[in-house]
Amino acid sequence: MAGVPRRTDARERMIRTAAALFRTQGFAATGWRQVIADSGAPWGSQAHHFPGGKEQLAVEAVALSGAGYGRLLRKVLRDQHPADAVAQWIDLAAAHLAATEWADGCPVATLTLETAHTSTSLAAACAGAYADWRTALTDAISARGLPEPEATSLATLTLAAFEGGMLLARAERSTTPLDTVSRELMATLRDRVP
Amino acid sequence: MAGVPRRTDARERMIRTAAALFRTQGFAATGWRQVIADSGAPWGSQAHHFPGGKEQLAVEAVALSGAGYGRLLRKVLRDQHPADAVAQWIDLAAAHLAATEWADGCPVATLTLETAHTSTSLAAACAGAYADWRTALTDAISARGLPEPEATSLATLTLAAFEGGMLLARAERSTTPLDTVSRELMATLRDRVP
Repeated sequence: MAGVPRRTDARERMIRTAAALFRTQGFAATGWRQVIADSGAPWGSQAHHFPGGKEQLAVEAVALSGAGYGRLLRKVLRDQHPADAVAQWIDLAAAHLAATEWADGCPVATLTLETAHTSTSLAAACAGAYADWRTALTDAISARGLPEPEATSLATLTLAAFEGGMLLARAERSTTPLDTVSRELMATLRDRVP
Repeated sequence: MAGVPRRTDARERMIRTAAALFRTQGFAATGWRQVIADSGAPWGSQAHHFPGGKEQLAVEAVALSGAGYGRLLRKVLRDQHPADAVAQWIDLAAAHLAATEWADGCPVATLTLETAHTSTSLAAACAGAYADWRTALTDAISARGLPEPEATSLATLTLAAFEGGMLLARAERSTTPLDTVSRELMATLRDRVP
């Protein structure tokens, strides 16, 4: 039945729209008015689709963004050494950041810093996204023979340095911090992962 | 003339109040109304003290917070190996984060992610704070004999991993990511810094 909109289309569009807005401008700066306008959903439908309000919308947006980022990371990690994969992943993120005028960084970080201490459900959603990415890194490192818990430790360092590198790159409006982090992580991963 | 308020007291209180609010709740969620109420400044005085609006207030708040954090970091880096200093610095930050119910992390990061791509002056203020902290780390590492540019590279990795660790800790509401980052950085710094 191509062309016939499914009943859930408006809801999905609202989540996708919100995910993009939260990613670039954050939680507090994003209002229902803009989500409704950009997604083309009818005003009033938000109460029906998201009885838990903007917090519920954000939880679903984080889940969507987090899963998408996780799939990208797993794709990059496939069939190459984690050192090369992490370098490629950081290069992709740096290129996207520069191409979007330093607006489009980690899809979860801004929302985390704004809301994680005030919303238990948003903290859990953000932590779930990071856990998924860290698991992808840990699995790729473990698969090369590095035992736990060293694989988890190295995956945590990698994720933290990546996130911090994105933060510094946005402030400096330059990929230099990410390039440096990439070189450092590549050397560490090549040194410690068989 | 103890007890006689200086003319700049209201302005300074507003900056200090705003710095605390931006640090915990971010830029977009912090309005003049709250800054005025919490600082005890008279309504209307903001236009006199900050003709550049909330953006000017935030630039000055970031400068104040950044300088304070930089002084703390330099104090910790004095008279001990960078590996021990970084571990102590991360411990202090982790303890403060836990004591404030995961609200009070890096004084600049939330504002960076919210505003750096839309405000040139805020991006510059945030980049200035990070540059100050990175310089403190670079100087401490160079002082032990590690040549440039390796000292800068290691300082960048350290700062990025610290910031990312704070981000992960806030989402997980746990110091575990920071503890891991601390152990990893300590091993790297001990290995590479004479």
